Amino acid sequence: MRRADPEVLAEVLRAAEGIAVPTRDEEERLSSVAERVLGAVRSSFSGVEGYLGASVEGSAAKGTWVRSRPEVDVFVMFSPEIPGERLEELVVTRGIAALESVGASWRLRYAEHPYVEGFLSGVGVNVVGCYEVERGRWISAVDRTPYHTAYVSSRLDERLRREVRLAKAFAMGIGVYGAEIKVGGFSGYLMELLVLRSGGFIELLEDASRWRPPKVIEMTGELSEERALVLFQNSPLIVTDPVDPRRNVASAVTLTKLSEFVLAAKLFLARPSLDFFAPPRPRRPEAWREVIAIRFDRPQGLPVDTLWGEALKFARSVASSLSREGFEVRRWAVEGTEDSVLVLLELDRLELPTFALREGPPVWLENALDFVERHASDPLTAAGPWVDGERLYVLKRREARGAVELTRRWLEGRSVSVPRDLDGPLRRAEVVALDRDAANRLDSMGFGQFIDSFLDGRPPFLRAR
Amino acid sequence: MRRADPEVLAEVLRAAEGIAVPTRDEEERLSSVAERVLGAVRSSFSGVEGYLGASVEGSAAKGTWVRSRPEVDVFVMFSPEIPGERLEELVVTRGIAALESVGASWRLRYAEHPYVEGFLSGVGVNVVGCYEVERGRWISAVDRTPYHTAYVSSRLDERLRREVRLAKAFAMGIGVYGAEIKVGGFSGYLMELLVLRSGGFIELLEDASRWRPPKVIEMTGELSEERALVLFQNSPLIVTDPVDPRRNVASAVTLTKLSEFVLAAKLFLARPSLDFFAPPRPRRPEAWREVIAIRFDRPQGLPVDTLWGEALKFARSVASSLSREGFEVRRWAVEGTEDSVLVLLELDRLELPTFALREGPPVWLENALDFVERHASDPLTAAGPWVDGERLYVLKRREARGAVELTRRWLEGRSVSVPRDLDGPLRRAEVVALDRDAANRLDSMGFGQFIDSFLDGRPPFLRAR
Repeated sequence: MRRADPEVLAEVLRAAEGIAVPTRDEEERLSSVAERVLGAVRSSFSGVEGYLGASVEGSAAKGTWVRSRPEVDVFVMFSPEIPGERLEELVVTRGIAALESVGASWRLRYAEHPYVEGFLSGVGVNVVGCYEVERGRWISAVDRTPYHTAYVSSRLDERLRREVRLAKAFAMGIGVYGAEIKVGGFSGYLMELLVLRSGGFIELLEDASRWRPPKVIEMTGELSEERALVLFQNSPLIVTDPVDPRRNVASAVTLTKLSEFVLAAKLFLARPSLDFFAPPRPRRPEAWREVIAIRFDRPQGLPVDTLWGEALKFARSVASSLSREGFEVRRWAVEGTEDSVLVLLELDRLELPTFALREGPPVWLENALDFVERHASDPLTAAGPWVDGERLYVLKRREARGAVELTRRWLEGRSVSVPRDLDGPLRRAEVVALDRDAANRLDSMGFGQFIDSFLDGRPPFLRAR
Repeated sequence: MRRADPEVLAEVLRAAEGIAVPTRDEEERLSSVAERVLGAVRSSFSGVEGYLGASVEGSAAKGTWVRSRPEVDVFVMFSPEIPGERLEELVVTRGIAALESVGASWRLRYAEHPYVEGFLSGVGVNVVGCYEVERGRWISAVDRTPYHTAYVSSRLDERLRREVRLAKAFAMGIGVYGAEIKVGGFSGYLMELLVLRSGGFIELLEDASRWRPPKVIEMTGELSEERALVLFQNSPLIVTDPVDPRRNVASAVTLTKLSEFVLAAKLFLARPSLDFFAPPRPRRPEAWREVIAIRFDRPQGLPVDTLWGEALKFARSVASSLSREGFEVRRWAVEGTEDSVLVLLELDRLELPTFALREGPPVWLENALDFVERHASDPLTAAGPWVDGERLYVLKRREARGAVELTRRWLEGRSVSVPRDLDGPLRRAEVVALDRDAANRLDSMGFGQFIDSFLDGRPPFLRAR
């Protein structure tokens, strides 16, 4: 493997610290926000039935948050007897009251349970409810979080905290950070475990540059690799949770994001550069290509993973319908703003050839005669049927040839997958070819950078090459 | 299986006899020509060293020739001691002399050895030299012919002769008659054996409608089916030669021609019609399609199977180069006149999309970095490289997009297969898109019906549907 000059590498890492590690001022601002919000939450929940206490969890508690991305998770612990609905109600009402009492702005967010997201002095704050339970008696998905915080905190020292921050900033820079469905990448906790296992950031990249899926990293000491492969089939990356051996911390990581991480690791080791941490913005290419755009209104009040699950499913269904029709779908991607969702698909061309080749049965089969009868008298038959090898073929004139036209038809006829929550918005979807006019309109709706990045095609870490 | 009304079938067969069975006048004309030519050949060769006699062979001798296709094969037998070159020289000089002595026109033809083709009173005559040898001691390919004539003649009666003629006329009508490489179909001798084996024409169609390749018909009583399959691998139809168990009489039959025969048999039995014997001519469709035409001069003095072997090889090579480049080659065909050879290829379109998707290696491989470096800095890169799944991809601007332009380049650069005998003619080949002008020019060169038939696409027996 190619390796860069160690001095060059050291210099890039020193510069990357400026991107990854918060300044003393930022640290203090975060501490102050964390303290104020924690105090307000404790007052707000004090005396509530089933309330057992509140604590700061996550990257703020572990000291692993990345510069310019300060975020405080305040967890409110409840007794397991409290029903889920009551917990939700309490978190929403009392959480909002707490945030308002310190002058924070807020809005509701939806995961398994709703939680309150606030902003105070430029710091993001989440007020999240969970159950205080013994290991393994999890009631809600976030009940593990305090255990994660404790596991990681007890193992990090000053050096490793810096290494985790570099690793997270690297994952952010190369575009693989985030376990949400929209990204399919690496969570903060996963990055922490990986750095702990490898012993440092560069050591992690060295390890990752040799990974091949399915890659197993066993953190619990309780499972064999074989057993882990059986338990977590179809996961390209398996990192067992030291807090819960039945959980794969890397279950969200898609093969594509894993591959991007591995490729970026190799490239960085071969030629370290600050571009991996602060990638150049994509520029819009001069030539227009064969792209169709489907824009629809974003349904409100949906858990974000539900929205993206449905949006990706819809996009995948359009892509496979287009392939089936004879288009070559080169790439597709989905992006959202607060109001809109945009699907882009790049094809080999926006218009199919006039004639389509249709393959029939081998002549030995009984239905060969049916194929002949059906096509011989069809006015759409342009040539044939003929025999080549053992099979019948026929050339048909296509009734519809445009990707935009076909997609509109499929949407009207609901012959692409239309997930429930997107039904209304997709009835009013706009389907257009991405030409200059369409791009200008979509730019003004906040999709400019997404369009640039889609047309550029490269993941962030390849933009500088 | 669907079966027609027996009375309808009988009526069609009666009418087909008018196409298949010669009139008394034609029979008499053929006999008279055969007698005159045989007499002339005997006089011409009389006294020549190694000459052992002459006889009428083939369909004229067996009484199995088809109406309007009278043909007399006069075989001149030589002693095995005569060297091949001497035999060729004698056949050419004395054969020409014999034909001229009866006032026949003539020209030389080339197979394994040259032979003389003549015309007299509208009847085709071939003067062919062979060795008189015992079974199995064959020197030249045609030495078996007298044995074939004897085998078939001794087994045919009046009824079976009519059945053979119907079967041959059917094979001609549906376009599968002829063992030459250009056709890849059924020889006359093969049709005779098949009718003998099935016991009649309709009986043969009944049998053939149930064939699936590889189909073995063992005529020698000396081979098992398993052994025949081993001996004649890759032959879709195996009919062992009663005169030579090591020979597959059907070795020329391609899978396509076999399949056409089977399909035509099924269709005829389901809906008998005289169209199978006298197919409608194809008509030129109104819409032009995406066809490229390559015309070149026909090299003279080549054995016809050599020419067609090379022409088909060349066409196949162009088709596979076009596929590799991204075109979908729907069909191709080759036709020749006395002066010219024409290759037609129908594509999905004559122009490729502006951009081509190039697949790179999985990121785990060492050469992934090379792929990134090579394409990231290439001015022809339109988007990417990007990662999808485990692989790298890149979108490239194509330098050449037209099928005609690309084919011309390949011909100039000899990067398609150019068989030796076609080298000169292909240097001066014309490559054009088949539009109205090009078609008019090619029509005037004698390719009109070939073009019609290619554009129509149907084999003759499907044209009436």
